Amino acid sequence: MNENVLGIVAGVLTSVSMIPQLIKVIKEKNADELSWVMLLVLISGLSLWVWYGFIQDELPIILSNSFAVLVNVVLLICWFIYRKK
Amino acid sequence: MNENVLGIVAGVLTSVSMIPQLIKVIKEKNADELSWVMLLVLISGLSLWVWYGFIQDELPIILSNSFAVLVNVVLLICWFIYRKK
Repeated sequence: MNENVLGIVAGVLTSVSMIPQLIKVIKEKNADELSWVMLLVLISGLSLWVWYGFIQDELPIILSNSFAVLVNVVLLICWFIYRKK
Repeated sequence: MNENVLGIVAGVLTSVSMIPQLIKVIKEKNADELSWVMLLVLISGLSLWVWYGFIQDELPIILSNSFAVLVNVVLLICWFIYRKK
């Protein structure tokens, strides 16, 4: 299989798997089950993967990790908005 | 920065961010917040990333996604063990 097609399919699957949690948090206006420390660790790691994708010039890596950064930044924002005072 | 070092650091960060959920599920013997459909989608996507890593011959991709497959397979097993009858 062409490695770009493989990477895109892999990226779509791992991206799709993040959507339900995002919907759940936004719908229930509750992000207590998330840890902001872990979100920051995850966002740092994903951002490094984007950087890695640019160095290796691999579009599937860049696209899927950029999407993951976006989803997790939104989750982090939700955490700050919805956290219990 | 050497791309392998960058990939390893990125992989360690994204791997570390998965551990708390695994610990929580095992400790509380409760995996109700997980969806087995999403775990299957995620495991499929991560497995394709491992395959992609082998095609591109990139060790950071292979290692971090193999670890993620392992964690999510354990979560899937926990889901089946701990689900409400």
